[in-house]
Amino acid sequence: MDLIVVGSVALDDIYTPTGSRERCVGGSASYFSLAASHFVTPGFVGVVGEDFPEEAVATFRRCGVDVTGLERVPGRTFRWAGRYHDDLNERTSLETELNVFERFHPKLPATWCDSPWVFLGNIHPSLQLEVLNQIREPRFVAMDTMDFWIEGTPDELRKVLARVDAVIINDGEARKLAGVSGTLRAARAIAEMGPRLVVVKRGEFGAMLWCEGEWFFAPAFPVDDVVDPTGAGDAFAGGMLGYLARAGRIDRQTVRQALVAGSVVASFSIEAFSIDRLASLTSDEINARIAAFRDVTDFELPSGVDRARVAAAG
Amino acid sequence: MDLIVVGSVALDDIYTPTGSRERCVGGSASYFSLAASHFVTPGFVGVVGEDFPEEAVATFRRCGVDVTGLERVPGRTFRWAGRYHDDLNERTSLETELNVFERFHPKLPATWCDSPWVFLGNIHPSLQLEVLNQIREPRFVAMDTMDFWIEGTPDELRKVLARVDAVIINDGEARKLAGVSGTLRAARAIAEMGPRLVVVKRGEFGAMLWCEGEWFFAPAFPVDDVVDPTGAGDAFAGGMLGYLARAGRIDRQTVRQALVAGSVVASFSIEAFSIDRLASLTSDEINARIAAFRDVTDFELPSGVDRARVAAAG
Repeated sequence: MDLIVVGSVALDDIYTPTGSRERCVGGSASYFSLAASHFVTPGFVGVVGEDFPEEAVATFRRCGVDVTGLERVPGRTFRWAGRYHDDLNERTSLETELNVFERFHPKLPATWCDSPWVFLGNIHPSLQLEVLNQIREPRFVAMDTMDFWIEGTPDELRKVLARVDAVIINDGEARKLAGVSGTLRAARAIAEMGPRLVVVKRGEFGAMLWCEGEWFFAPAFPVDDVVDPTGAGDAFAGGMLGYLARAGRIDRQTVRQALVAGSVVASFSIEAFSIDRLASLTSDEINARIAAFRDVTDFELPSGVDRARVAAAG
Repeated sequence: MDLIVVGSVALDDIYTPTGSRERCVGGSASYFSLAASHFVTPGFVGVVGEDFPEEAVATFRRCGVDVTGLERVPGRTFRWAGRYHDDLNERTSLETELNVFERFHPKLPATWCDSPWVFLGNIHPSLQLEVLNQIREPRFVAMDTMDFWIEGTPDELRKVLARVDAVIINDGEARKLAGVSGTLRAARAIAEMGPRLVVVKRGEFGAMLWCEGEWFFAPAFPVDDVVDPTGAGDAFAGGMLGYLARAGRIDRQTVRQALVAGSVVASFSIEAFSIDRLASLTSDEINARIAAFRDVTDFELPSGVDRARVAAAG
């Protein structure tokens, strides 16, 4: 398997100021795997209950996601309900029912145990460790986490952090994890805990990367009509890891391109409810938006600066 | 005069979590003119009281700011006091005394009335109009404003907006001025009110530009030790307008470079209290950071995307 993702699969009820959708597919592994499917074949490890629609599983398959690692067990699927505020930047969780997710222990299909690329979605750090213990020699492991684990299970979380190559995390959570008030400082402090790459997601402000003493900043691609921001962070991570796994390299330029690819895939994801846009997305659309992304960020070095720079280098 | 700025001159008391400075030079025109002085000779129009230190005026002069338009009148200088919160992104105003600024009416020295570049700092819109009425045929006028005028004097503000080329404004104020919740939508709505360029300042997240149907996003340059964020927005505007005025062009690349120059100058400004860093800054430092700015934002188009793009264009 090219790229394994372990995380939640959910049925979401989503309410926004302009619309709503009930019992739609959600969860970090769902958004991640569909985002990554535009670059590689992702292997999906998760659990659903008897109520999870067979058509949703068919959608994953049709999009090239390998669902061999998706267990179906008696009971109800993880449920989440949330209401977005007027500007869509804030939301209130209305309901969270873990259901079958409560007793989830990820079991990797035997042939997946030598997968080179791994994403540990936002689940209990001890489950993240269980996954790592099933994989022989991963080439690159990235993880997400959240306030709940930062506060509740800090020791287990530190153990995971020491074993991963990358953290992809929200800005508020980065500051909480590092215990400092500035985001720049927080990212550097997290890098000291183990991961070589620290990616901080800043919602409508884009993402920033701290890697080997260098910063890289990517804005969020401007989307006129945001329909549903749910899963944007997971779509970002899926696009980024998918891009890296397909390239098979983790050099400076490839990592930057991967961040841009993640930002672009996330910008599509929020244009429709649930996983709809991720499931309908094409490579041409992604490539066109990567080119557009460069257009909204690129500038030529002023000639005086460029000459001074060349002179200094020579 | 290359570039005229009209705005406030203040004596500030600034309290941050790590230090404080009392009765230091502040005000929008102070930060703007020193920022612009690294590119052109700015002409400073403002008013101070008897308590304004002569050394501060000498600092402006030494930095190449023309202070012929700076009146000194009986009374006390505009005073502001503020306390920054832990993360320096929020502040509480402790005190605002308009003093001599209350009866300020900008009077341009006669020879400044044919200045090509003009910045209308954040003052009463009717004063901004008074300035415009004193200038014969400005080539490029930019303005700032704030909540107080958006709510209190909307009609006068609309008249100014109809006569300027650019607005440089904070994100919250942009949304308030446009009366919409999204920042992208707000910038476009403001462009409909007159200005060709709309620059939205987003503090630690940088700035975005809407111009002729195109977006451009510039992050804030990462600064490790922010000492005093006061005046960052005015330093940004000063760097941007100074850069444009020196270039003497307002084409796509120059405007983008100007935004970057503004961002870079603002990043220096916040490294020390008050105007200290703006006054000590050198061209070499600015150029080095513009080059570094490109390093933290640049990425190569993936070869597949680039080939597809070339094919589509050909």
